[in-house]
Amino acid sequence: MKIKVGVLGATGLVGQRFVQLLADHPMFSLEVLAASERSAGKTYKEACNWYLSEGMPESVKDMTVIKTDPKAKEFEDVDIVFSALPSDLAKELEPKFAEDKLVFSNASAYRMEEDVPLIIPEVNEDHFALIDIQRDNRKWDGAIITNPNCSTICLCITLKPIMDNFGLESVFVSTMQAVSGAGYNGVPSMGILDNIIPYIKKEEEKMETESLKILGKFEDNKVKFADFKVSASCHRVPVIDGHLEAIFVKTSEGAEPEEIKEVMEKFDPLKDLDLPTYAKPIVIKEEEDRPQPRLDRNTGKGMSIVVGRIRKDKIFDVKYLALEHNTIRGAAGASVLNAELYVKKYL
Amino acid sequence: MKIKVGVLGATGLVGQRFVQLLADHPMFSLEVLAASERSAGKTYKEACNWYLSEGMPESVKDMTVIKTDPKAKEFEDVDIVFSALPSDLAKELEPKFAEDKLVFSNASAYRMEEDVPLIIPEVNEDHFALIDIQRDNRKWDGAIITNPNCSTICLCITLKPIMDNFGLESVFVSTMQAVSGAGYNGVPSMGILDNIIPYIKKEEEKMETESLKILGKFEDNKVKFADFKVSASCHRVPVIDGHLEAIFVKTSEGAEPEEIKEVMEKFDPLKDLDLPTYAKPIVIKEEEDRPQPRLDRNTGKGMSIVVGRIRKDKIFDVKYLALEHNTIRGAAGASVLNAELYVKKYL
Amino acid sequence: MKIKVGVLGATGLVGQRFVQLLADHPMFSLEVLAASERSAGKTYKEACNWYLSEGMPESVKDMTVIKTDPKAKEFEDVDIVFSALPSDLAKELEPKFAEDKLVFSNASAYRMEEDVPLIIPEVNEDHFALIDIQRDNRKWDGAIITNPNCSTICLCITLKPIMDNFGLESVFVSTMQAVSGAGYNGVPSMGILDNIIPYIKKEEEKMETESLKILGKFEDNKVKFADFKVSASCHRVPVIDGHLEAIFVKTSEGAEPEEIKEVMEKFDPLKDLDLPTYAKPIVIKEEEDRPQPRLDRNTGKGMSIVVGRIRKDKIFDVKYLALEHNTIRGAAGASVLNAELYVKKYL
Amino acid sequence: MKIKVGVLGATGLVGQRFVQLLADHPMFSLEVLAASERSAGKTYKEACNWYLSEGMPESVKDMTVIKTDPKAKEFEDVDIVFSALPSDLAKELEPKFAEDKLVFSNASAYRMEEDVPLIIPEVNEDHFALIDIQRDNRKWDGAIITNPNCSTICLCITLKPIMDNFGLESVFVSTMQAVSGAGYNGVPSMGILDNIIPYIKKEEEKMETESLKILGKFEDNKVKFADFKVSASCHRVPVIDGHLEAIFVKTSEGAEPEEIKEVMEKFDPLKDLDLPTYAKPIVIKEEEDRPQPRLDRNTGKGMSIVVGRIRKDKIFDVKYLALEHNTIRGAAGASVLNAELYVKKYL
Repeated sequence: MKIKVGVLGATGLVGQRFVQLLADHPMFSLEVLAASERSAGKTYKEACNWYLSEGMPESVKDMTVIKTDPKAKEFEDVDIVFSALPSDLAKELEPKFAEDKLVFSNASAYRMEEDVPLIIPEVNEDHFALIDIQRDNRKWDGAIITNPNCSTICLCITLKPIMDNFGLESVFVSTMQAVSGAGYNGVPSMGILDNIIPYIKKEEEKMETESLKILGKFEDNKVKFADFKVSASCHRVPVIDGHLEAIFVKTSEGAEPEEIKEVMEKFDPLKDLDLPTYAKPIVIKEEEDRPQPRLDRNTGKGMSIVVGRIRKDKIFDVKYLALEHNTIRGAAGASVLNAELYVKKYL
Repeated sequence: MKIKVGVLGATGLVGQRFVQLLADHPMFSLEVLAASERSAGKTYKEACNWYLSEGMPESVKDMTVIKTDPKAKEFEDVDIVFSALPSDLAKELEPKFAEDKLVFSNASAYRMEEDVPLIIPEVNEDHFALIDIQRDNRKWDGAIITNPNCSTICLCITLKPIMDNFGLESVFVSTMQAVSGAGYNGVPSMGILDNIIPYIKKEEEKMETESLKILGKFEDNKVKFADFKVSASCHRVPVIDGHLEAIFVKTSEGAEPEEIKEVMEKFDPLKDLDLPTYAKPIVIKEEEDRPQPRLDRNTGKGMSIVVGRIRKDKIFDVKYLALEHNTIRGAAGASVLNAELYVKKYL
Repeated sequence: MKIKVGVLGATGLVGQRFVQLLADHPMFSLEVLAASERSAGKTYKEACNWYLSEGMPESVKDMTVIKTDPKAKEFEDVDIVFSALPSDLAKELEPKFAEDKLVFSNASAYRMEEDVPLIIPEVNEDHFALIDIQRDNRKWDGAIITNPNCSTICLCITLKPIMDNFGLESVFVSTMQAVSGAGYNGVPSMGILDNIIPYIKKEEEKMETESLKILGKFEDNKVKFADFKVSASCHRVPVIDGHLEAIFVKTSEGAEPEEIKEVMEKFDPLKDLDLPTYAKPIVIKEEEDRPQPRLDRNTGKGMSIVVGRIRKDKIFDVKYLALEHNTIRGAAGASVLNAELYVKKYL
Repeated sequence: MKIKVGVLGATGLVGQRFVQLLADHPMFSLEVLAASERSAGKTYKEACNWYLSEGMPESVKDMTVIKTDPKAKEFEDVDIVFSALPSDLAKELEPKFAEDKLVFSNASAYRMEEDVPLIIPEVNEDHFALIDIQRDNRKWDGAIITNPNCSTICLCITLKPIMDNFGLESVFVSTMQAVSGAGYNGVPSMGILDNIIPYIKKEEEKMETESLKILGKFEDNKVKFADFKVSASCHRVPVIDGHLEAIFVKTSEGAEPEEIKEVMEKFDPLKDLDLPTYAKPIVIKEEEDRPQPRLDRNTGKGMSIVVGRIRKDKIFDVKYLALEHNTIRGAAGASVLNAELYVKKYL
């Protein structure tokens, strides 16, 4: 028996990725597509300007889109909703869905709330324990479970095996982020052709704070933040999909590039769980000019972080490059993997 | 009376920038255009596939290109040559020209030789003193005077006022470099459209070593390298002109962003010399999303470094963005400004 | 004494080009910058997100932007307004301004009205005669004078000397248009990176109908449309500025490529009028791979159409390429040149 | 039993597509990878800088690349070679291979020879009859069978159903071609970023002449060329893969857009043959802004021509847009489909 799920914000760029991942999913049955009033009543095919080159899955084309209303009868039988809502709408609507459903959310609205888990399955599965506290606090039968900001996911997956083996002191990260991260209309072509925009609103703050929560420990019923330091500089470049990050790491105990490489290669905590969206979390490229967004972003169907150029650093211990498909591993895929893990192990 | 000059490698991308800057120069008279055997004998208009959108200066169109031969009679009356030769040719040919001429070179071949000045006029004018030592060592009447690698110039101009006022301990720099930096055929479009190439051969090494020479002191007849540390990660992005650098700085004495900004604003050692290619070395933008390559690269006719987003750093003292027109300030313009300063003050 | 002018829609992409062209104009004094209510009351520097790489002219930075209200007292002394309004606003507001001012409009709203001149100065200056008829019809002291759609201007300037010398029967045109033609937010980067959008709303219709009016004759107090046929196919490509058109022409009398080239070269009806925005209307490139948008769009400060590859056609007489800077010659510059000609010859 | 095949020029861009299509092919067993002397002796993984985002097939990674020598013993058992050789090498080497093998060639060298079939399987299968004549003429046991130039294939597939149903008189075509068509190093990024190059060497000639051969009839032991006229204008745009063509057609009998659409929809001569690389030859999109290269180029695994905007023309009968994946349907896929059809029906 599949679990019935819905998607909130189903017509946008991340919403479409959700639909793509859930359309023929072995654990989930996609029952409800919700979007703004403008789309309500239309078939998904009519309502949605499908942006993905892979083509719209046949099974969703004729589904009728409904308004994102937590009280709509179409949601009655749904157990899980995936949220691709913009932050302000998420803030208002997700709690209502959470009264009786699990909300796996890509929105930033509740990520940093003390009782809301901010999960990367391979990194901090133990934070799911916040769900009980959240339910106590908020008198919900459901819960909000968030995934981090796209750039943060990429960074934290690579930091986790380093932290576990050598400890972390300081991390610099300089990003080169794809335009899809801002949504379909987010970056006008006039702004980015032959150009870089060296500023993404709140992105540096998200990387610098979310990382410490994610890599923190669940203790005494709360998450104790990790105590290393992160400094980020974030930039938008003329690339469609794929965030690339230059990362410089100082460990507590010292580590050589070969050691870092070894612990990254071995890092694979979900490998025996048979989760549908699973891919090896870190894939290491040996070529001196990789990872490259266009060539490597689809590694592991877009779910693997591709790491390259792990090398000795003159100031810290190591520096390396990490690449993530930002709308799959960095958004919709992140939520779906969260849900798969939770359902498999805790439901 | 203008000084007679020639350009070596006059038909390539940097060579064209030299020609553009020198064609109607108030101090220099462009007498000789030298290139490979293939171009020799043709008019510059015929020999050169002019890449610059500004159009070829009228005065050079009908000049006859000669082969890059130090013994050619056309060079007899020439006092200065500007070299845009590739590194291997520079290695072989520049010493022959230096026997009786000043060679202002953009090539990397001799930059790190102990008796060769590696100059940024605003930063280390005192290193011109190496010329006498070089002449003694090599029995030349001329000399080789080099300018740094493009990315290094951008970095060092911004570091100089920081070092002078607060001292320097450590510097991380992550670059987003334009395709023109690799020469016209250097980056195939198949490699860079919708992509980033996170590797530029020897670029990180150049930034990490050249910077220490440039910011070093001339003492006891040699350059004593600066003793802070630089770590670079270099990346090619789909931008035509303009290298953008994310820079993180730890000073010796500690400094607030406002203080850094103030010393950068004031930094202007050449301002009273009336050099033709002079522009204010650092221009600071206040907007939160600048500098941007397409909008800001031509600031100061391509000779100003444009700095933005000077902000407090969580690990070091400050972080900021710096932009440079890589084929003007980062290459041909750098050599020409070196020559202007040297001629004005020392000839 | 300069004529006092204002710009409607001054903060948009075409509005900025108007400001750039008018800021230090020898015939016009720029007195009023009008925009939407949101910008009203701010200085132009505050209200305007300046997109052009040339930098905002000093003289306009501190001008106060007003709301686009025909009754505003600031317009009282203004004799000419240049309109960069969107079509719906132009429809409503331009007639009010035309009651007592000359409105030189880039908007499409009134272009095809029978009594409104649709002018390219080099092509159909005689259509200014419609102004008297317009004033009679509409009881205005001012008038609306329009310039054509960007792609149409490029086409018609090249067709005019052909028509005058050899007659015209049929014209196919296939365009490759820059993203700036859609305004700053018109084309999302997600839509155009590594892509072409083979559709521009109403563009083909505009090219096919406006051309016949422009190349028509003023007779018996109206414009008799030209009787050749135009078929257009319009496409958006990842280029910032510069529309490129592949044009195939069948003349009435037959013509060889050399003859076409000769009449285009000679075509220069405004050359003795000393108009400030004048440039040679057609510049012919001999290289086999020109015109190219990035290299050639600024020819004649963006006011020249650059033509290349004039060659024999297997079906019609000739085919060639024509390039236009779409926001200068194809928009703001077109209006300004209209105004300069009208003021010089008819006021 | 699979037929043993080899690929000539296996490391280039088209060569890689051949390898991708043939690596796990149900009819062919890929036995030999041949390339230049530089690659000989290396494994394919070492020799080949793999450009395709899909990743190199496992089965070829450790194959040893040999020099392209028709006498090499590795070719002894091979029955078919697929040629991605450059034209000059093809001219020299293909005849030697053709002495005892079938050479399915993407090179232009022999396309227009009287006794060489120039085949698009859906269009002119009857031209395979030239093979017997070629063998008689040249005393070969094998044969050279060519596929057309990339842009020509796209055009001719769409013209075939029109010609068969309504006759053809005249065709204009204006192309917007991807950079991959020129090979990996063919188009420098400095030439194409923010730009169009309105010239592709010999491309217009190929489209104008090859089309007439392909759409000609095999009669009296030779191909009688079709007698309509084609005029092409060819342009390179900043797109990675996917040639887009704006096509204007005058039929002999007249045809409405709806009729054209209907005959294109029905056109599917290979559908019952169960060829491995088969896809529906023409897929029609109804949206007003399609086909788009990035979204539609992979239709039918890159083997379908995607047609859109079939509309009435003001001069001819109809105009429409057609898109082709230029390195699959326009190159390697074209050759492979030729071979599949030939083997299935004639061997």
